[in-house]
Amino acid sequence: MDKAVVLVALAAVFSSGNCQYEPTWESIDSRPLPEWYDQAKFGIFIHWGVFSVPSYGSEWFWWYWQGRKLQSYVDFMQKNYPPNFQYQDFAPLFTAEFFNAKQWVDIFSASGAKYIVLTTKHHEGFTLWGSKYSWNWNAVDVGPKRDLVAEVADALRANSNLRLGLYHSLFEWFNPLFRQDAASVFTTNKFPVTKTLPELYEIVTKYHPEILWSDGDGDAPDKYWNSTGFLAWLYNESPVRETVVTNDRWGYGTICKHGGYYTCSDRYNPGHLLKHKWENCMTIDQKSWGYRRDAELKDYLTIEDLIKTLVETVSCGGNLLMNVGPTHDGRIAPIFEERLRQVGQWLAVNGEGIYNSSAWRAQNDTVTPGVWYTCRPNDNIVYAVILQWPDSGYVTLNVPLVVEGKTEVALLGYAQPLKWQLLKPIGLKVFLPQLPYGQMPCSWAWTLRLTGAT
Amino acid sequence: MDKAVVLVALAAVFSSGNCQYEPTWESIDSRPLPEWYDQAKFGIFIHWGVFSVPSYGSEWFWWYWQGRKLQSYVDFMQKNYPPNFQYQDFAPLFTAEFFNAKQWVDIFSASGAKYIVLTTKHHEGFTLWGSKYSWNWNAVDVGPKRDLVAEVADALRANSNLRLGLYHSLFEWFNPLFRQDAASVFTTNKFPVTKTLPELYEIVTKYHPEILWSDGDGDAPDKYWNSTGFLAWLYNESPVRETVVTNDRWGYGTICKHGGYYTCSDRYNPGHLLKHKWENCMTIDQKSWGYRRDAELKDYLTIEDLIKTLVETVSCGGNLLMNVGPTHDGRIAPIFEERLRQVGQWLAVNGEGIYNSSAWRAQNDTVTPGVWYTCRPNDNIVYAVILQWPDSGYVTLNVPLVVEGKTEVALLGYAQPLKWQLLKPIGLKVFLPQLPYGQMPCSWAWTLRLTGAT
Amino acid sequence: MDKAVVLVALAAVFSSGNCQYEPTWESIDSRPLPEWYDQAKFGIFIHWGVFSVPSYGSEWFWWYWQGRKLQSYVDFMQKNYPPNFQYQDFAPLFTAEFFNAKQWVDIFSASGAKYIVLTTKHHEGFTLWGSKYSWNWNAVDVGPKRDLVAEVADALRANSNLRLGLYHSLFEWFNPLFRQDAASVFTTNKFPVTKTLPELYEIVTKYHPEILWSDGDGDAPDKYWNSTGFLAWLYNESPVRETVVTNDRWGYGTICKHGGYYTCSDRYNPGHLLKHKWENCMTIDQKSWGYRRDAELKDYLTIEDLIKTLVETVSCGGNLLMNVGPTHDGRIAPIFEERLRQVGQWLAVNGEGIYNSSAWRAQNDTVTPGVWYTCRPNDNIVYAVILQWPDSGYVTLNVPLVVEGKTEVALLGYAQPLKWQLLKPIGLKVFLPQLPYGQMPCSWAWTLRLTGAT
Amino acid sequence: MDKAVVLVALAAVFSSGNCQYEPTWESIDSRPLPEWYDQAKFGIFIHWGVFSVPSYGSEWFWWYWQGRKLQSYVDFMQKNYPPNFQYQDFAPLFTAEFFNAKQWVDIFSASGAKYIVLTTKHHEGFTLWGSKYSWNWNAVDVGPKRDLVAEVADALRANSNLRLGLYHSLFEWFNPLFRQDAASVFTTNKFPVTKTLPELYEIVTKYHPEILWSDGDGDAPDKYWNSTGFLAWLYNESPVRETVVTNDRWGYGTICKHGGYYTCSDRYNPGHLLKHKWENCMTIDQKSWGYRRDAELKDYLTIEDLIKTLVETVSCGGNLLMNVGPTHDGRIAPIFEERLRQVGQWLAVNGEGIYNSSAWRAQNDTVTPGVWYTCRPNDNIVYAVILQWPDSGYVTLNVPLVVEGKTEVALLGYAQPLKWQLLKPIGLKVFLPQLPYGQMPCSWAWTLRLTGAT
Repeated sequence: MDKAVVLVALAAVFSSGNCQYEPTWESIDSRPLPEWYDQAKFGIFIHWGVFSVPSYGSEWFWWYWQGRKLQSYVDFMQKNYPPNFQYQDFAPLFTAEFFNAKQWVDIFSASGAKYIVLTTKHHEGFTLWGSKYSWNWNAVDVGPKRDLVAEVADALRANSNLRLGLYHSLFEWFNPLFRQDAASVFTTNKFPVTKTLPELYEIVTKYHPEILWSDGDGDAPDKYWNSTGFLAWLYNESPVRETVVTNDRWGYGTICKHGGYYTCSDRYNPGHLLKHKWENCMTIDQKSWGYRRDAELKDYLTIEDLIKTLVETVSCGGNLLMNVGPTHDGRIAPIFEERLRQVGQWLAVNGEGIYNSSAWRAQNDTVTPGVWYTCRPNDNIVYAVILQWPDSGYVTLNVPLVVEGKTEVALLGYAQPLKWQLLKPIGLKVFLPQLPYGQMPCSWAWTLRLTGAT
Repeated sequence: MDKAVVLVALAAVFSSGNCQYEPTWESIDSRPLPEWYDQAKFGIFIHWGVFSVPSYGSEWFWWYWQGRKLQSYVDFMQKNYPPNFQYQDFAPLFTAEFFNAKQWVDIFSASGAKYIVLTTKHHEGFTLWGSKYSWNWNAVDVGPKRDLVAEVADALRANSNLRLGLYHSLFEWFNPLFRQDAASVFTTNKFPVTKTLPELYEIVTKYHPEILWSDGDGDAPDKYWNSTGFLAWLYNESPVRETVVTNDRWGYGTICKHGGYYTCSDRYNPGHLLKHKWENCMTIDQKSWGYRRDAELKDYLTIEDLIKTLVETVSCGGNLLMNVGPTHDGRIAPIFEERLRQVGQWLAVNGEGIYNSSAWRAQNDTVTPGVWYTCRPNDNIVYAVILQWPDSGYVTLNVPLVVEGKTEVALLGYAQPLKWQLLKPIGLKVFLPQLPYGQMPCSWAWTLRLTGAT
Repeated sequence: MDKAVVLVALAAVFSSGNCQYEPTWESIDSRPLPEWYDQAKFGIFIHWGVFSVPSYGSEWFWWYWQGRKLQSYVDFMQKNYPPNFQYQDFAPLFTAEFFNAKQWVDIFSASGAKYIVLTTKHHEGFTLWGSKYSWNWNAVDVGPKRDLVAEVADALRANSNLRLGLYHSLFEWFNPLFRQDAASVFTTNKFPVTKTLPELYEIVTKYHPEILWSDGDGDAPDKYWNSTGFLAWLYNESPVRETVVTNDRWGYGTICKHGGYYTCSDRYNPGHLLKHKWENCMTIDQKSWGYRRDAELKDYLTIEDLIKTLVETVSCGGNLLMNVGPTHDGRIAPIFEERLRQVGQWLAVNGEGIYNSSAWRAQNDTVTPGVWYTCRPNDNIVYAVILQWPDSGYVTLNVPLVVEGKTEVALLGYAQPLKWQLLKPIGLKVFLPQLPYGQMPCSWAWTLRLTGAT
Repeated sequence: MDKAVVLVALAAVFSSGNCQYEPTWESIDSRPLPEWYDQAKFGIFIHWGVFSVPSYGSEWFWWYWQGRKLQSYVDFMQKNYPPNFQYQDFAPLFTAEFFNAKQWVDIFSASGAKYIVLTTKHHEGFTLWGSKYSWNWNAVDVGPKRDLVAEVADALRANSNLRLGLYHSLFEWFNPLFRQDAASVFTTNKFPVTKTLPELYEIVTKYHPEILWSDGDGDAPDKYWNSTGFLAWLYNESPVRETVVTNDRWGYGTICKHGGYYTCSDRYNPGHLLKHKWENCMTIDQKSWGYRRDAELKDYLTIEDLIKTLVETVSCGGNLLMNVGPTHDGRIAPIFEERLRQVGQWLAVNGEGIYNSSAWRAQNDTVTPGVWYTCRPNDNIVYAVILQWPDSGYVTLNVPLVVEGKTEVALLGYAQPLKWQLLKPIGLKVFLPQLPYGQMPCSWAWTLRLTGAT
């Protein structure tokens, strides 16, 4: 960090005169989440790094190979690489020659996402920007020889309304300073002081992210990482203090408990409403966050799976962060592009029930399976998303309170109002139109809008 | 070629005692096409080679870069490779470490194809088998260090009923012996004698292909290539003489005129019936036969496009040879896998109207667009494939002669017989069932079976 | 550095209770040079690093190429490497597969050297040991994947009586933290605190060097480097405090002025006696310290040149540190091996006048050119090394005070005493024996021992 | 071969009208050796090829590794290269970026050699020129991307009077066509017809060598190779028919028996006179013809060894062909350069007794060891080269017939005539001058010229 930045940070931490937030969880947690985040509902997660070079098994390749020594990884290396080839030797092969940030942004925009989160540094420690604190282990010094974070940030801002989120791993599997601190049970803190914190200040100051997606506590407590100190600076003094959102992975024990929104676990999808804003980060390739060359078609979630996950997540008050893994040469594979564009097609019809919606008093229907609710309380609108088009021609909704003569039911993407019937003691039966195949408003899931329902 | 093989070949050429076919086009062209080929209708073309390493632009990479010196290719090389890097330097990078022939065969089987055609050697001259005539420029000596043709052939035969076809290029862009022959206006024939013909005998003898897909005459006449001599051996004496099928690319001027079935041009799809059996070879990636890393989603034909092409081709008496380009490391990208499996899903419902069908007296309907016919003359069955599900609920077929009380109309994949109405002066109006979205027998196109129609 | 080490260091700096040396130049400079160093006279310098991979031009390759952008370096890269190839990409090519430390030690021993100095880190910043402070930019993480310093140190101690010296560069050309400090005119010191000093403590603690050969102040003053603080620790507390020797390159302005022995400049060979112990570090390849593939025979000093330099240096009170540059794959090229073994052959005969000798009152003869003196004052012995065998058969020495009947003159390697004649007013004429070619005691230079001379 | 060349060749073989030599050994062997060769005495052999890339063990690397599977080679590959790395993968690493033919020629000239012999193709089959018959396995298509033979030939002719010799291997270890012929006990000859012979015509026609140094019969008889047919063309019709010289390695059983001069075996040095002109081809690195990175100083012959070998060889009527192995990047290592320049220094003084000399009636002295004779019969001059300078101050020559008052004895490089004494019954005692070390005419060996001796 620059000296000036340090001073600012120190000021943030020690003086509370003109500062709203103090470096305590009580204070940090008291900050209201900037509104834009809950309204956005849908973002794209991007896992890219040196792991995209072997692109085998998982973005945890290094750890599985040399930390846990899993047989399949050990075999993969023995079969395909020279003896003594180390993970570091993958870095020069991270070429990114096809990387075109504008092309990426076009795809992200077409997906209907409102924000992205890019891995600026995963547990491997390799920074996608030219960090001063990661000399010769960053994308400007080796591999792409380009500031990948800057290229994404600039293209995003020039070509879209999406917001920029940056993922950053606190710990690094094999960094000797982290391992030294760990060996002393985190009674020393050489690693956060010389690496993690300077990097965090660096990316916030340079790229002005509106999401800071922290990860990887390495079993070390937030005290070790000085997380509350950093967050106080982020909330009080940083250039993004007004709009920045962060998550809950700021040290051992903080997850699902402190920070900004909750992530709780990877692919978190509780199926019920949470009191605290949360995010479901999940992957299109079910088995990996990073690109996997060994992924077969069956490993990719279908568009039906993805729409279902989006609907469930939003109904339960969460945001969906859907992950794609670009290749070592900078491409978003067509199978990912297809899924993202399909989500975008669906949202073009059904977005009204997703964006800016709220979780309703019920999340899914008590009788009909595959029906998920959202609402706009100010407008007395309830949305019911149905994941299957009923063979019977009607769908029974058991939870909404509706009023004959007042409540109106519509199918998003279909012009005419739908017929419906009041049910006793509660609920309604909605009659869907008999549409020829080519006249369906969309595929995969359909949204009913109940106006004047509660 | 082995001496024994040569002698057999010479015997085939010069003795006509026990031989059916003589080395003349008149004789060669008189051979009836083995029946299996017309019945098969659908095959998979596979373009794989050293061009799969740059996997940029086209499988004609070498020629476009160094023959025609197209700017984009020249720039690509200057930007990404060392000075003096030559095409030959790509060969060691052709690694095929993820190549699993059984996995490929599973995908090909699932596509509903009945045969495959693999590029054993493209115009680059690199043989995917360990040819004795292409030392150090073949997949056993450099790159994969594996006999890729053998692996595909063995897996195909062990795991499927698909038939093996082998693509082979007569000429080679940069082979100095070919260029020398060309410089002497093909008055010398060192190249075919020491390279092309020995290779052809080698692959037929080693791999017993049932299609020999010749290509690339290099503007040289068939006399130069001694094509009729070779074909006489192939038809009279080779181990596959009973079942082998070949195409029409055997020398300048032979295409669409001599040999086995006609290919006429790449992506040949005439839209009308031909008198001679033909094949439409086309690509899922519209811009290339070889894998292209720079392909975006919009470059890939949609499943609707592919089904339409299949239906049009078969209706006009052709076979469809649909191309995929595997990667340098041996994978069939998920986007290709998805398309192929979707074709297979469609054929699982509609195959009855495709496999073993014949072209009918009309290819498409004269009134309703997007309706294509096939038939089974022995059974008095006509099939009408409709590419769009009519919003009106019925489809008008203007060509079939039908008889009230005798003709029956069915929708493949739907149990009940359909209602229909005789039209004057000819044709009928078929009423399609009103099916809820989830009950449709298939997507993308639907087949009507008219029994007792002519 | 380990916390413990830091505490020790701090203790060394701030408490003066049981400490001999304080962190001031006055105190540091007051320490007597351990005796072994002056007695040793001859050492081998070894420049090895990532620069040994391009092994072109100079070990300053990186700086000349990208700092000064010298044309020949820019051209070399453009002609031979891909665009965007960076210096860091050389590191994986630093393979050291032929490196055998025992073999090196055998050669060093055979040269007659008494110590070696190995570049543990040159200005490129790449550490030949697995420094915790240079993650992914060291020989254990990338390139050799071996602790080269440990291998040399262990082989040296197991197989020889040579002492271990370690070269270490304070600054690093392109380290962003150093550049940041430099940009603030060294008012910040992030770089020495997080990199240079921890590394220095690390190598002293791990490898127990008896010479610490500091270099590369980067125009920063010793205050910035905290050199006196470190040296106080080195002299008071380090494990090598009794025997360690260091040089004079500890910050801008210290050279030839402070520290241990003086080096003054590269290839320093003043030709007269200095009051302070000094060292002439020079190279066998006249143009480079690192290995140069482009070196021709004429670039290598001849054995006559080398012997002359050794003799001149020792006569003037210096030690000679003769440099070789191993190759990227770990070899000492035969031309270097030959020169070193030849020096060893010469020392086997003439070492008596070199090792443990002292500078005499005169360094060279006032009349006869090419005659250099050393002495053993306690034994009243004066040595005169003559660089040319006189055609005349005698040599005139104008400086020694000799006494007829008492002084004896001998030729080292020749059994009989020599005849000599007293000259007026001073000096003597020594008659050399007429030796057939095969009976000469040695080649290149010859030593006369004058016993009873002053 | 070009058609024209073939016709010429055929003409050479079948018509004997205007042709001196017929394709029989009797006729071929009857050709007198062009005079220049015997006068030249000393040439440089250069082994360069893909084997210069591993540069480990021997230029037979490929065979030792994969043919004989010698453990050290297998281990070397396993330790340093990826699995499945094949010999062919070394070719792209044959970079030759430092290759400067003019520099080579300067060194060869300085050595005193009168001709060179360059391996245009060793048993690996890789041609150093862009052979049409070795597509993609030659230095123009892969590796250097340069015609190395042309560069050497052009530089030699532009900058020196040395003559060009080309080494060419008949067989190739792993060429599948050769192996096929071998498997049929050489009853087929596909390999010589399509590879060896076309190549031989190609290099003679393109580069006009004055030595054609054939090697590697692969245990096949000269009939298989059609050697006499080729040699008849070479002697009758080729552009170098007047001056070309060849050796004796033209098929199993021909060595030391047929062809041009005899080589008999590698490092052939019989120690006595042969009736037929011969050549001693030997290596400075005792263990390998190709460059070996693992060579230590002790593996290189000393300059004393080399001078001794030269003298012995010439005395016995042979020529010496002294081998150096350039590196993969095109350098002649300084240790080779030093040896070659030293030979040149020696020849500058002693060449009179070597070049254009003849073998004398005695080869070495019967009494004094280390004395070797040559002569100029037309001038009544006998030369005696003494390998050791006698401690006694004189040397006894027991064979020359000398006459008091007529015979004069001189030491080459020394102006004054020497004193000598007639011995009974034969011979003489030559008194050498007592020269101070710096006045010796040369080192390593000395030549006495006896004028008027027989």
